[in-house]
Amino acid sequence: MKPPLIIALDAMGGDHGPQVVIAGAARALSNHAGLHYRLYGDSELINRQLDRFEDLAARSTVIHTTVTIAMDAKPSQALRAGRRDSSMWKAIEAVKLGKAHAVVSAGNTGALMAMSKICLKMLPNIERPAIAGIWPTIKQPAIVLDLGGNVGASATKLVDFALMGAAMSRAIFHIEKPSVGLLNIGVEEVKGVEEVKEANAVLQACDLPVDYRGFIEGNNIGKGDVDVVVTEGFSGNIALKTAEGTAEQMAFYLREAMSSSVLSKLGAFCARSGFMALKDRMDTRRYNGGSFLGLKGIVIKSHGGTDEIGYASAIDYACEFAHAGLVDRIAADVEHFHASLNGQLVD
Amino acid sequence: MKPPLIIALDAMGGDHGPQVVIAGAARALSNHAGLHYRLYGDSELINRQLDRFEDLAARSTVIHTTVTIAMDAKPSQALRAGRRDSSMWKAIEAVKLGKAHAVVSAGNTGALMAMSKICLKMLPNIERPAIAGIWPTIKQPAIVLDLGGNVGASATKLVDFALMGAAMSRAIFHIEKPSVGLLNIGVEEVKGVEEVKEANAVLQACDLPVDYRGFIEGNNIGKGDVDVVVTEGFSGNIALKTAEGTAEQMAFYLREAMSSSVLSKLGAFCARSGFMALKDRMDTRRYNGGSFLGLKGIVIKSHGGTDEIGYASAIDYACEFAHAGLVDRIAADVEHFHASLNGQLVD
Repeated sequence: MKPPLIIALDAMGGDHGPQVVIAGAARALSNHAGLHYRLYGDSELINRQLDRFEDLAARSTVIHTTVTIAMDAKPSQALRAGRRDSSMWKAIEAVKLGKAHAVVSAGNTGALMAMSKICLKMLPNIERPAIAGIWPTIKQPAIVLDLGGNVGASATKLVDFALMGAAMSRAIFHIEKPSVGLLNIGVEEVKGVEEVKEANAVLQACDLPVDYRGFIEGNNIGKGDVDVVVTEGFSGNIALKTAEGTAEQMAFYLREAMSSSVLSKLGAFCARSGFMALKDRMDTRRYNGGSFLGLKGIVIKSHGGTDEIGYASAIDYACEFAHAGLVDRIAADVEHFHASLNGQLVD
Repeated sequence: MKPPLIIALDAMGGDHGPQVVIAGAARALSNHAGLHYRLYGDSELINRQLDRFEDLAARSTVIHTTVTIAMDAKPSQALRAGRRDSSMWKAIEAVKLGKAHAVVSAGNTGALMAMSKICLKMLPNIERPAIAGIWPTIKQPAIVLDLGGNVGASATKLVDFALMGAAMSRAIFHIEKPSVGLLNIGVEEVKGVEEVKEANAVLQACDLPVDYRGFIEGNNIGKGDVDVVVTEGFSGNIALKTAEGTAEQMAFYLREAMSSSVLSKLGAFCARSGFMALKDRMDTRRYNGGSFLGLKGIVIKSHGGTDEIGYASAIDYACEFAHAGLVDRIAADVEHFHASLNGQLVD
């Protein structure tokens, strides 16, 4: 039997604060028997929300904090001004002190990353957290990283990303040897940067717990060609945002087309069950949550503007990672890779 | 009155060769009074297609060539093996020799870029061609560059891209002072690479013929927030391919949703005029054509797999660029910028 989980929540993080966090926490409870929360934030505000959820109140410990990190604070500001009294810091610290198995925050991304790094520390060989996200495809969802934690990445870092993404795929989707693709560009003469070419060579040569499939291009992500897509953070973030923008653009075109004539409106009304299915399929709340990988603890960043359904998804991921022992698996895989790399250099 | 244009076509380029090239050329004729073509390739194959289009035949000169650059040839191979006898080289050379105002090829991108660079040469201060494309948005289409010509770019190069993209926007959309955004990522702590930050400073400080709007993120492209989106070629190519992949993914979801039940099928049938409008709006053939900017001549790369409608669009762009004197405008704007840059350093 799995031990009951404890998840720390930064109740003040996000555009809507405790209202969404508490409702999301209540929603996630039903998926995880024995789950307990530690809720960090203004206790008055939290308790007011807890009044709405009897079951949740019974399975939560509220820890009062006095400082909230602003959504638009610069990470350096967030680290200066009384950081140790903030709901974000306290929630992260709970993981460090063994009081929680994972932390979820919908707060300021830069501050969460900086605080996680300082409080929890990085695993050996890892410099900065990589941000991994779940990307819906026409097949099974894929994991894409780095979505913006590292701008630029050496070949070794890219291989670390592959291992971390594969460990995450194993934890969530239970794929023992996930397929991995390295994002690259298709213009022959200038094909790829040196780091990407070098990472390709290492991934082909090394014995790693992944099914390496070579280079893929941006249009292969949505086709679901691989389980894990690896790239550095600048292009990864641009790919993610561009995909989001394109999906919104298509939805806009569709709405316009369906209201362009009386007959179109009638047709859209008839086909409303189909459109509901489409809306459901394009619902990104199910995939809400950026995982900060490479830390000595599980940290999930929820989208700041999400609602309770999205927030509950982020909690689900935190639980699955904790159950799967994600941090230990990443630590072991990365250590093994770096050891073999050093071995190769010595031989 | 504008002088009659002459456009050189690499009739052998693309997945379908002369069949699509000739049909596309015939289709574009009606948009451009007095347009004349120089058709480079196997004269027997070309003439067989020309038999179908009497008007086109009267307005074309066929130049027989004996070598075709394979679509999958490496640029280095393409440059070695009898390059000067190929339809691609001869078509480019026509621009150099003043026999044509622009060249269009649907052939091998890497080879076209390498040959263009060697044959036509770069404008002063420009090292390699940037690939610019037209990106449909919910407002007016935007121009995005670089889509893969340069992997990585210094701050100065990024500003050159801004000027070249603005000149292209002026030529096609007749916007005198196009708005320009610099693509960047939104994660606070690691916001952008040094080159991008530096380019931002230069664009703010220098007196340039653009309306600079600062950083934008990937999701702003499709919203049509700016007329010109500037980035280096690796992230630009990934953004483009990811957007294409996402649009295909949405179309797939939509087809599935509309065939999920009898009522959905009936609704889709009623709304078919709306769906036709949607299909038309998502039709990328209207925007087919990557422009190689920074060369001493106009070179348009058509998508290799496009049909005659897409190919005709690429010819349209070539004509508009030639009429607008795009190369001279780019040369002047880039020269002025580099002179002011040098002046700043001296002062």
